[in-house]
Amino acid sequence: MLIVDGVPLSRQQLDAIDGYWRAANYLSVGQIYLLANPLLREPLAPEDVKPRLLGHWGTTPGLNLVYAHLSRIVAAREQDMIYVAGPGHGGPGMVANAWLDGTYSEIYPAVSLDERGMARLFKQFSFPGGVPSHNAPETPGSIHEGGELGYSLSHAYGAALDNPDLVVACVIGDGEAETGALAASWHSNKFLDPVTDGAVLPILHLNGYKISNPAVLARIGDDELEDLLTGYGYRPYLVQGYQPEPVHQVLAATLDAVFDEIASIQRAAREDGVDERPQWPMIVLRTPKGWTGPRVVDGHPVEGTWRAHQVPLGAARDDSRHLSALRDWMLSYRPEELFDRHGAPVPSIVDWLPSGSARLAANPHANGGRHSRDLELPDYRGYGVMAGSMAGATSVLGTYLRDVMAANRPYGNFRMVGPDETESNRLGAVFEVTDKVWQAATAPVDEHLAPRGGVMEILSEHTCQGWLEGYLLTGRHGMFPCYEAFVHVVDSMVNQHAKWLKVSRKLAWRKPIPSLNYLLTSHVWRQDHNGFSHQDPGFIDHVMNKKAEVVRVYLPPDANTLLAVTDHCLRSRDYINVIVAGKNPAPTWLDIDAAERHCRRGLGIWEWASNDAGDPDVVLVAAGDVPTMEILATAELLRTHLPELRVRVVNVVDLMRLQPTSEHPHGLPDAEFDAIFTTDRQVIFAYHGYPWLVHRLTYQRNNHDNIHVRGYKEEGTTTTPFDMLVLNDMDRFHLVMDVIDRVPGLSRKAATLRQRMVDKRAEHRDYVRETGEDLPEIRDWSWQAIPAG
Amino acid sequence: MLIVDGVPLSRQQLDAIDGYWRAANYLSVGQIYLLANPLLREPLAPEDVKPRLLGHWGTTPGLNLVYAHLSRIVAAREQDMIYVAGPGHGGPGMVANAWLDGTYSEIYPAVSLDERGMARLFKQFSFPGGVPSHNAPETPGSIHEGGELGYSLSHAYGAALDNPDLVVACVIGDGEAETGALAASWHSNKFLDPVTDGAVLPILHLNGYKISNPAVLARIGDDELEDLLTGYGYRPYLVQGYQPEPVHQVLAATLDAVFDEIASIQRAAREDGVDERPQWPMIVLRTPKGWTGPRVVDGHPVEGTWRAHQVPLGAARDDSRHLSALRDWMLSYRPEELFDRHGAPVPSIVDWLPSGSARLAANPHANGGRHSRDLELPDYRGYGVMAGSMAGATSVLGTYLRDVMAANRPYGNFRMVGPDETESNRLGAVFEVTDKVWQAATAPVDEHLAPRGGVMEILSEHTCQGWLEGYLLTGRHGMFPCYEAFVHVVDSMVNQHAKWLKVSRKLAWRKPIPSLNYLLTSHVWRQDHNGFSHQDPGFIDHVMNKKAEVVRVYLPPDANTLLAVTDHCLRSRDYINVIVAGKNPAPTWLDIDAAERHCRRGLGIWEWASNDAGDPDVVLVAAGDVPTMEILATAELLRTHLPELRVRVVNVVDLMRLQPTSEHPHGLPDAEFDAIFTTDRQVIFAYHGYPWLVHRLTYQRNNHDNIHVRGYKEEGTTTTPFDMLVLNDMDRFHLVMDVIDRVPGLSRKAATLRQRMVDKRAEHRDYVRETGEDLPEIRDWSWQAIPAG
Repeated sequence: MLIVDGVPLSRQQLDAIDGYWRAANYLSVGQIYLLANPLLREPLAPEDVKPRLLGHWGTTPGLNLVYAHLSRIVAAREQDMIYVAGPGHGGPGMVANAWLDGTYSEIYPAVSLDERGMARLFKQFSFPGGVPSHNAPETPGSIHEGGELGYSLSHAYGAALDNPDLVVACVIGDGEAETGALAASWHSNKFLDPVTDGAVLPILHLNGYKISNPAVLARIGDDELEDLLTGYGYRPYLVQGYQPEPVHQVLAATLDAVFDEIASIQRAAREDGVDERPQWPMIVLRTPKGWTGPRVVDGHPVEGTWRAHQVPLGAARDDSRHLSALRDWMLSYRPEELFDRHGAPVPSIVDWLPSGSARLAANPHANGGRHSRDLELPDYRGYGVMAGSMAGATSVLGTYLRDVMAANRPYGNFRMVGPDETESNRLGAVFEVTDKVWQAATAPVDEHLAPRGGVMEILSEHTCQGWLEGYLLTGRHGMFPCYEAFVHVVDSMVNQHAKWLKVSRKLAWRKPIPSLNYLLTSHVWRQDHNGFSHQDPGFIDHVMNKKAEVVRVYLPPDANTLLAVTDHCLRSRDYINVIVAGKNPAPTWLDIDAAERHCRRGLGIWEWASNDAGDPDVVLVAAGDVPTMEILATAELLRTHLPELRVRVVNVVDLMRLQPTSEHPHGLPDAEFDAIFTTDRQVIFAYHGYPWLVHRLTYQRNNHDNIHVRGYKEEGTTTTPFDMLVLNDMDRFHLVMDVIDRVPGLSRKAATLRQRMVDKRAEHRDYVRETGEDLPEIRDWSWQAIPAG
Repeated sequence: MLIVDGVPLSRQQLDAIDGYWRAANYLSVGQIYLLANPLLREPLAPEDVKPRLLGHWGTTPGLNLVYAHLSRIVAAREQDMIYVAGPGHGGPGMVANAWLDGTYSEIYPAVSLDERGMARLFKQFSFPGGVPSHNAPETPGSIHEGGELGYSLSHAYGAALDNPDLVVACVIGDGEAETGALAASWHSNKFLDPVTDGAVLPILHLNGYKISNPAVLARIGDDELEDLLTGYGYRPYLVQGYQPEPVHQVLAATLDAVFDEIASIQRAAREDGVDERPQWPMIVLRTPKGWTGPRVVDGHPVEGTWRAHQVPLGAARDDSRHLSALRDWMLSYRPEELFDRHGAPVPSIVDWLPSGSARLAANPHANGGRHSRDLELPDYRGYGVMAGSMAGATSVLGTYLRDVMAANRPYGNFRMVGPDETESNRLGAVFEVTDKVWQAATAPVDEHLAPRGGVMEILSEHTCQGWLEGYLLTGRHGMFPCYEAFVHVVDSMVNQHAKWLKVSRKLAWRKPIPSLNYLLTSHVWRQDHNGFSHQDPGFIDHVMNKKAEVVRVYLPPDANTLLAVTDHCLRSRDYINVIVAGKNPAPTWLDIDAAERHCRRGLGIWEWASNDAGDPDVVLVAAGDVPTMEILATAELLRTHLPELRVRVVNVVDLMRLQPTSEHPHGLPDAEFDAIFTTDRQVIFAYHGYPWLVHRLTYQRNNHDNIHVRGYKEEGTTTTPFDMLVLNDMDRFHLVMDVIDRVPGLSRKAATLRQRMVDKRAEHRDYVRETGEDLPEIRDWSWQAIPAG
């Protein structure tokens, strides 16, 4: 690895930066331990110490060191920069820095830049009613939740996209580096365009330890590590040490070299037309865990070991030796040199910091909603297809997204990400106007690959999600089309983003960011060809556990409703929108105007498919495209064979409408629900996913006891599309049987029809096992069933 | 990368291996396309071709090539070996090989080794009632579902653990290599002991393309790739080519070299006492995608491109040019040389294969239940703690697991995996008898690290899960303790394992394998210190969507019930067991005998906490350790202040008991449910997780309309333990209010009590915000509340 010698800092600069660092460390320790007496102007008493010590010291001094030196670069070079801190445990550090540069007090005036404010700063940390122990939406300058690990680098790349002047500095913890998400995301450098995107500076922080183990990358030797990072495509610089002064000098010299190199790469690409994939620089920073903290506690070494991970002096309130060690530790930073008599930082340690929105904690990119531009959206109605026509919903949507892409790429405002599936999901129309970013080597047979473009594909859902989150959190828009089953790969990332949104939307200073939009396609009912392993509609259930104000789920039944729903989602902010839609040719039930009306209502009676004259014997409900087809076929079978049965057909687009208003802002009032679903008639509900979700949503409704739901119940394999329905008892024949079994007082004709349905299922089974195809009447049905015009 | 020259194969060996490979390719193509006429002895007619062409050709010839050459190694060296095929799309290949070596017909006699059997082999593939298009439990020799990508290498390492004579050959697709799970799992070589474990041979197959994109690792250049793989700690050999004969020779020579190297590493470690981490060999295999398939179709290049991914001649049934190209393609393998007149493979292409259980498809390690040894389990009752004592449930369990570990390590039969949390989850007692495996460098401050051991910790839940799955699928036992919130990282892997179990348990030839046991701790209610990002009880909901026969969820209320439940889980097979238990000191409610009885019933009335005299006014139910504490506190408050109210206390350990018998084998019959929960009294239910799950489980119960559930509703932050309950309205004060609000006809005393509860909540809020601690009466309550004895 490269090592940069040199002493770029003058004595004064060194003292300033070291003073700043000591101040940040002091403030970090104070947050973890102290309730009062912040400047230690009184003897430290047990009651000054928090009764519960919650926080993480270990990673904090390293994060503070980097923060100080990045601030120097920002000031010296007028560099637009944000800081992503992967080791989110270092919450006290990021807060301390934001307080030192004044941002914190501007946002939270009660936490003022004086002794009183410092006392508040200390007390509020990890304290009821205060701020979390990790980086969080409450932390100024952060776009990165510090809870679950692994997403820092993909977030950083997402933030850098289409921000050509921005450098995103990203500290990666050596623990975090072991995660799958992080390990995959190193390759993001093959998807970053040096001309139109900004730069990412990865700083791999080897402090050596996790909770109670060493970290793998800290123990494989420098040669292997260098090979690994070079293999990832980076040019690694090594900064290591234990003595602050030399580390300050080497880190400063290295950052100077690295930022020169970034500038030189960008200049070569932008001005000289160099189009080779650059070997971007990165830094390996090897400093002790819990650096400057207690060396030994209770006879055990602490500084530089895993014991420094959390709270090194755990008994500071109860054990006078711990208390005294805490005092010595805090005084070792010489606070009397760092803070004036009012408790404000002395000018010499902060007067060199960048100011205004150049400060790392105040950079507007890290409060992405602040300057976020709305998308230019063409009128989706122009993309509608004729009711009655066959259309692949995602193919139609592709033409709309193509024009969204074209209208917004000039603003660097819209990206689609996905795991190698844009074509497979029939959204290929976007390639008429843009390309897939690809900075690695190309071959003549490649299609739609280019050094820059609006689509990013890598076979890592984690990386796709991380890129998109970083892009959204910095104020831009996007969409993530994904195979429905495999979006579970990012379940845990979705959790974290939902939690971020739940908190950030309540912070007035954080402005709403564009929604996270999923298009789940190649869905469970059309994975007949890939089989059981590709069948799972449970992502809807997963997101439903998140806060109602954040989550939206849409199941458009056809191409036109998919257009209407997508337009709505692309205009929204601060939500997670999940849209489920098929890619196979399917009937278009509603013309574009009817689709718009239907989507605005979220659910409704389809009069044209009903014969209930306002008083149904049975209500047939569908949510999802395939269920809609089956419910309509069921209604037709009933109309044909039991014409006296009054059938109402209801279609649900917005799943949230099923819930009571108390549970979700989209919830349908009970009176409206009762008017549609009745209070006493049988309801047969064909649902796209696991059936129990519908029960969960409707169990408080008056007619719940009469709602019977069919859906996917984990019965699938490689078979035909209709057989998938039969295996799960959601086929039209079984739905007719369900109606006959549930509705009281039917004629003898009903018994005959029921037997006929049993026979049809047997006929189906025999036919598909013989031919491998669905019965011709099934294959042809959709063509005939489409309503006129 | 290393390139091995040489022509180790004689002409005869070359012809034999190439003939075998051509046969496997022929059989693979036949499976994708043909319904009949398997040997093309009649002119190929459109009706011989399947109407729906479902399958993946692209990866298959490469998988077949590797299979052939590994078989040569197995035969030549009597090497115990299994084959993990990461590119699971290559389903037809693995089936073809199993048929060629005779395994397939032994397991599925109808698919005999003759023309009739070949016709069945072809028709059944990706066909209704047949076999899936991907590798699956139905595939002999496979331990690896071929649906979702990313888990091959961690599965391979899991299989190799404690199997010192086994080599697990693992083909990694270059698409799969982009995933997070795969990227993280390369580092598994730091956790494999060359003395007591077997070896893994990674074969990175660069065929260059995914569905419609090139693969990253195929386009970064050989130097960068070599750096990367060397950085991962391997010694990479390169085999590449397009002409079969030279590729056969180089691959054979390379495998000879590589297996020599593996043997030499093992000898050095086992006989010479070398204790340096070895640089294990691996192979980079660069061959064209869809090799030997159609070069050009409809004017587009296919062989060697992404267009070969799936079905290259998609219109073979309808387009005579495609049909004719298909015929030419199949005949290019010269089937007349490969199969005799009965359709069996000619001896010369198969007589060199290994035989019996040495065959890759018949190796017993790949049917892990076959020789799986039950665990030696000490009597868990001996680890019980006194009812009435305070105990950390996982600490107590740790002493039991310590002895399970000690009793079974001699058999290489039990491992614990985890993301750096064994100590944090208070299971550290296991380190009295074993260590954490660590083959990387060590430092004096390290604890419990050793070259071999029963615990494996890496900060990648994916890798932990993959290791454990590989270990279980090869017949051994294990446990995965994990922070509850972050187990969502492996949601998608759990899906795939559940699907595997659902299918494998119905295959008589696949013997039951040990269950996948999760211990979810550091759970939502005790993440008051880490905050909102660490709070998520939704994994239970996630697994509940899987098939009832596979999934079990246990919520033991204390240390003794945790012991009973864990013993039960460690004895079980073919399940996914989820146990949720706390690590903090908490009251022990039941002595060990009562715990055993309670767990055997799964739920029951706690008479000692009830005063209902068989006829309750209200039923208080708890599921989970923290809910149990709150419900008991609620009961005490009610007994004290409303002694005339008849309160029944019910505790649920086995969550599945709540469901009807029709939905789950553990379901409680309605009559028994009604006897406990009544049919008409108010039920206040405190549940560990998201409350709606209880509604989902009970909505068919008679008394459902009276069941009111409190649980986690995404309200959390860094605060105190009791405040977590208050934020989610599951604290004792709110539960008392719920009772008073729901139970009709209460006295005026009740209104007074209700106001007192409102006041207590306010008092709590003020106190914690002032002091950072819970009210003393809350902190002390558990000590007083424990029943006598």
